[in-house]
Amino acid sequence: MGEVEKKKIIIDTDPGIDDAMAIFVALGSPEVEVIALTTIFGNVYTSLATKNALHLLEVAERTDIPVVEGSHMTIMKATKLRIADFVHGKDGLGNQNFPQPKGKCIEQLAPEFLVEQAKLHPGNITIVALGPLTNIALAIQLDPEFSKNIGQIVLLGGAFSVNGNVNPAAEANIFGDPEAADIVFTSGADILAVGINVTHQVVFTDNDRKKLEESEGKLAKYLCKILGLYFSYHREAYHTKGVYLHDPTALLAAINPSLLTYTEGVVRVQTTGITRGMTLFDNTLKKYGEITEWTDKPKVKVAVTVDSPAIVEIVLDRLINS
Amino acid sequence: MGEVEKKKIIIDTDPGIDDAMAIFVALGSPEVEVIALTTIFGNVYTSLATKNALHLLEVAERTDIPVVEGSHMTIMKATKLRIADFVHGKDGLGNQNFPQPKGKCIEQLAPEFLVEQAKLHPGNITIVALGPLTNIALAIQLDPEFSKNIGQIVLLGGAFSVNGNVNPAAEANIFGDPEAADIVFTSGADILAVGINVTHQVVFTDNDRKKLEESEGKLAKYLCKILGLYFSYHREAYHTKGVYLHDPTALLAAINPSLLTYTEGVVRVQTTGITRGMTLFDNTLKKYGEITEWTDKPKVKVAVTVDSPAIVEIVLDRLINS
Repeated sequence: MGEVEKKKIIIDTDPGIDDAMAIFVALGSPEVEVIALTTIFGNVYTSLATKNALHLLEVAERTDIPVVEGSHMTIMKATKLRIADFVHGKDGLGNQNFPQPKGKCIEQLAPEFLVEQAKLHPGNITIVALGPLTNIALAIQLDPEFSKNIGQIVLLGGAFSVNGNVNPAAEANIFGDPEAADIVFTSGADILAVGINVTHQVVFTDNDRKKLEESEGKLAKYLCKILGLYFSYHREAYHTKGVYLHDPTALLAAINPSLLTYTEGVVRVQTTGITRGMTLFDNTLKKYGEITEWTDKPKVKVAVTVDSPAIVEIVLDRLINS
Repeated sequence: MGEVEKKKIIIDTDPGIDDAMAIFVALGSPEVEVIALTTIFGNVYTSLATKNALHLLEVAERTDIPVVEGSHMTIMKATKLRIADFVHGKDGLGNQNFPQPKGKCIEQLAPEFLVEQAKLHPGNITIVALGPLTNIALAIQLDPEFSKNIGQIVLLGGAFSVNGNVNPAAEANIFGDPEAADIVFTSGADILAVGINVTHQVVFTDNDRKKLEESEGKLAKYLCKILGLYFSYHREAYHTKGVYLHDPTALLAAINPSLLTYTEGVVRVQTTGITRGMTLFDNTLKKYGEITEWTDKPKVKVAVTVDSPAIVEIVLDRLINS
């Protein structure tokens, strides 16, 4: 397959154990060309996300891919952030004491970089957003043309008609910057949201981990080490013997959308009170008498079902054979 | 069946077309003794709700049952209320120009009355709440023992894991007074919530209306007249050829709980922002790392499935044969 046919993707990421998995799956997927990693807070602070992105590209021997640092604060300039180090470890990668990366991120900041790339390749860049949506919202604010120029934004975020994972209302990525998320969802860009209502169906089991362990894949073996903490967190928080493949599912939705099914409608994000960070989808089954906060806003695609066995199989295949 | 065995119920109501239906079903049900109607705003303003309650009891020749007027404003003392006259008509009863009622409501106000009755018959009163929960929240604030003294509160309210009917987030009764609803849901009283996720499954069709029309029941014939507007509203708003039996379903849940199935957990109500009035249930499948607004709050029962054909059949039977 010629380079020219590959889908250009930028992964906006806060690595993150399942981010590492998604990045490696992307690097092992012939259908896509990863043109950059942009970083954001979430599983770790942004500066550590940048370090980890550089480290993961060094492990994968893909230091040709640039890392672009993103925002250190929310779009409302909050610096008190919710960091999920209890899920991913203090270092974001399962507390493995990896060496410092040798490389550095490029000079440009992520929002400017996103705006520039979208202009350079109008309609041809897919952003796979695996953390809070701050960088993308900033890009939208920087350039009124950005939501038209960008090809698609596939985002891991939201809890549609189910409880959240930060609290009963909110999913972690949206909770991380609700105002940014509402800007992105209502921007008019081509958006495909993969929420935990879907990713909680994609379970990577102990047995799947064994397959990684017994393989010859270098990246597969690396992931086995960092997955330990992720498994213990899931056992504790969800009483499951496997882990949810949040980020790899969103990544594969970008590569092969037919692995999931979708509905289309307006999504708004609650930004105040006890349900701050909640995503609410209007199914439009009722014709409301009043104008609502959902009326006349742009529609997005929201994933509703997923072919979980296929996702797990593709993840294993891409990690073992790359 | 002896009087002593009947379940004592107080119907807190804002009649309202489906309220009228629920009240008549209650009056035709040998299992319950309706000891009072308390009134509230919602489908109409409170003073009209009182008038309509008196009128309905006169139509049913049950002027032995007292009507007790409730609050004219929300618990936060808002007087700008959302009144659903576009569903039930300017008069709340399908714009039929009924004569003024001859009777009057009693001197006492609804919250005091509820407190007194709960004290008089501790554990033996069921409130069937068919409107916003202001009166009940006021009773809880008046008397710290009220939530223990009251037997059960069966309420028509909420939209659990589905869109609302006022806007995508909120169901009308909860939207009518979100702060009151949150007080009631977290009061520790024995609460059974019947939301529109359930009542939208209970459809009373044109054919069912014909059965009322062709019957000899006086109340059945009365209802046929007022149901016209309710049918046109549903055709317009939901594209259905039937109407949802919201209030009768809640009433029958109080009479025979086995017509529905339930789950149990904490419900909180959002009071600010675009999802004001939304009910959010914590299914407790996840052990959250942080303390949430749902943590350690009292649990309530929330209806999840309903035997719709049985509900419709019982409604028809009680209306035709009473």
